[in-house]
Amino acid sequence: MASSTFSWSKIPHTPSYQNPKSATIQPSFSISLINNQSSSDSGSQVRKPKGSPQLNRWSRARALRSGHKLERHSNRAAQAVELRSPDSPTDRALPEPASKGRDGDDDVEKTVGKSIYMVSDGTGWTVEHSVTAALGQFTHCLVDRVCPVSTHLFSGIDDVERLREIVKQAAKEGAMVVYTLADPFMAESAKQACKVWGIQSTDILGPLTEGVASHLGVSPSGLPRGAFGNNIPLTDEYFRRIEAIEFTIKQDDGALPQNLNKADIVLAGVSRTGKTPLSIYLAQKGYKVANVPIVMGIKLPKNLFEADPENVFGLTINPIVLQTIRRARAKSLGFSDEMRSTYSEMEFVREELDYAGKVFAQNPTWPVIEVTGKAIEETAAVILRLYHDRKHKCSMPRISKRY
Amino acid sequence: MASSTFSWSKIPHTPSYQNPKSATIQPSFSISLINNQSSSDSGSQVRKPKGSPQLNRWSRARALRSGHKLERHSNRAAQAVELRSPDSPTDRALPEPASKGRDGDDDVEKTVGKSIYMVSDGTGWTVEHSVTAALGQFTHCLVDRVCPVSTHLFSGIDDVERLREIVKQAAKEGAMVVYTLADPFMAESAKQACKVWGIQSTDILGPLTEGVASHLGVSPSGLPRGAFGNNIPLTDEYFRRIEAIEFTIKQDDGALPQNLNKADIVLAGVSRTGKTPLSIYLAQKGYKVANVPIVMGIKLPKNLFEADPENVFGLTINPIVLQTIRRARAKSLGFSDEMRSTYSEMEFVREELDYAGKVFAQNPTWPVIEVTGKAIEETAAVILRLYHDRKHKCSMPRISKRY
Repeated sequence: MASSTFSWSKIPHTPSYQNPKSATIQPSFSISLINNQSSSDSGSQVRKPKGSPQLNRWSRARALRSGHKLERHSNRAAQAVELRSPDSPTDRALPEPASKGRDGDDDVEKTVGKSIYMVSDGTGWTVEHSVTAALGQFTHCLVDRVCPVSTHLFSGIDDVERLREIVKQAAKEGAMVVYTLADPFMAESAKQACKVWGIQSTDILGPLTEGVASHLGVSPSGLPRGAFGNNIPLTDEYFRRIEAIEFTIKQDDGALPQNLNKADIVLAGVSRTGKTPLSIYLAQKGYKVANVPIVMGIKLPKNLFEADPENVFGLTINPIVLQTIRRARAKSLGFSDEMRSTYSEMEFVREELDYAGKVFAQNPTWPVIEVTGKAIEETAAVILRLYHDRKHKCSMPRISKRY
Repeated sequence: MASSTFSWSKIPHTPSYQNPKSATIQPSFSISLINNQSSSDSGSQVRKPKGSPQLNRWSRARALRSGHKLERHSNRAAQAVELRSPDSPTDRALPEPASKGRDGDDDVEKTVGKSIYMVSDGTGWTVEHSVTAALGQFTHCLVDRVCPVSTHLFSGIDDVERLREIVKQAAKEGAMVVYTLADPFMAESAKQACKVWGIQSTDILGPLTEGVASHLGVSPSGLPRGAFGNNIPLTDEYFRRIEAIEFTIKQDDGALPQNLNKADIVLAGVSRTGKTPLSIYLAQKGYKVANVPIVMGIKLPKNLFEADPENVFGLTINPIVLQTIRRARAKSLGFSDEMRSTYSEMEFVREELDYAGKVFAQNPTWPVIEVTGKAIEETAAVILRLYHDRKHKCSMPRISKRY
């Protein structure tokens, strides 16, 4: 969740702290990191790709498995990229490595179906988020693995040699490449390398960044987030979000009802309506959330009715779906048959939902959200839309933020 | 976090449950939702924009504030969109409403600096995530609000009339428009409307979806995620993620050390190294995380040393940054001066970090992550890269997933 950006500070005007490496307390720490190929921490290697132990390791692996022929391809690919000659004859040389890859490369995870390579100079969460969203357009063929898709995330890719290794590997796996690379040289290299290897590629952030640049009339930094000198300072926003998460964890499952009035959002619903994951998701976005379980036969805390009714949201769900979820839950918790029946038998499920329904009916100011068939993100979107609409009474409901 | 997609099930082959509305237990529930303009729940209104109470509300507000002239623009804009005539003379009519908006429209939040309108037919988290990531390229001008930017998220926009209202409003605010609209007609309408109103626009998902479609050889559904018939079924993945979040909450801050061996990832570090938000972030991605606070003078649980050392990660931070964070923390917790000093005074901070350093040195298999200057997402990326690299021993470190 980019929207929930927690960050540690660099001390302003104290350059020696701006580079995480130089801030390491015991050198052995960052060494242990390098040994573990934490590429995003090896910022110093950006322009010395040959020095990367990771790269050497890959090269050895590659040499072992594919010998000279591929080497030549690699060189030609590299040259073509250097030459920036998209229409170079190397294009025609492509099918060979591409097909090669498919018939058995022991480095390729045995991927069923199609692969999507996601390459990022940062965390990779943006490219992963976007690809997941795009795949949402193909659920009709993904469901039951009709046409399975594997995604492979390569994050912290900050040197062009590694980038080209990945593109070559993608060609061998017959994968497409989706990338978010802040450095224009890296982005162009990715584009060209994909062209050379004849594989499809999409630049996720490039067009948007250009758009924003011309809208703001400012040039982009070309630095990945978190790169040296591009850290987000320790803001009130940061503290607010940490506090929201800590508050929300403490309030989970009806704990500390005396704090319900301190919550931005209070969720009420029967067991397995997704109160906890929903609370956590909202907390990541900076909202203090408390959730109150509605259990038949157990009196609700009076604080629930004393809290600002504009902050309280009821959750409801289709009984058959709820029963399915509760059965799975009861099984995973190893409930006894008897406990299982009271918890997940249809009659009880309906009764409890009816009971919740009565509570909601007695508190008509609480919006009641139907969660059946919704992902947590979707329910969260509905709740936040209502929440902001109620707070800001804007004639065009929107969630606004300042940067 | 799209990557953490929790979802409720539609019952397969039981159409009556495929539409959340029809699954509502008490009609009053969804009525209460419509009253609250939960547009994403009003799927049935998709093709009856005139019927949308939301739209009527906007129209009234608009009529009140801008009278006929804007109306005419609106019609001309709408016609132009209908006609798909980007070069229509309406282009030249633009500056007027644009400037109009700036000198005082009481519906426009008093926005300082530039605005970015984010429009989505779904939750809007993808467009928000991408815009936040793109803004990461402009931190040099965002820091200290040198050139402040406001984003405005309009989610669940599923009819073209509302879409055009938003684009018109964007023109009045001098905003750019960034959109994720699955329905090709809606996406094209957004593009054309922005052209008509002479404002910059970027389609976030369109190009990627096309790329994926031709890679898979399958046409996209054109349905927003969560739309009727496009729900993600109740998968093992879903249960795994819920379980991960619930596990992680229970383990927070050293609770139930006897479960450390059940965690996928164990984080150890002194207070305020971000263990809790980091744990929650990783849990959202489906990992069971436990965190163990390292407190000087308090013995660490033996279970920490019995857990698989490949799963344990140490966190460290620059002492001056830590002191800054602890001071803020102590203040927000209302610590007494005495407590505050032991907790956040430099000498103590250094001693405690040294103590943690010794623990880490005695457990060399634990990678130690330097969190100074890193956003939680960045630290999470480093940890997951190491985690997957250790588990899969792949010569090209990657995080793979199947869909």
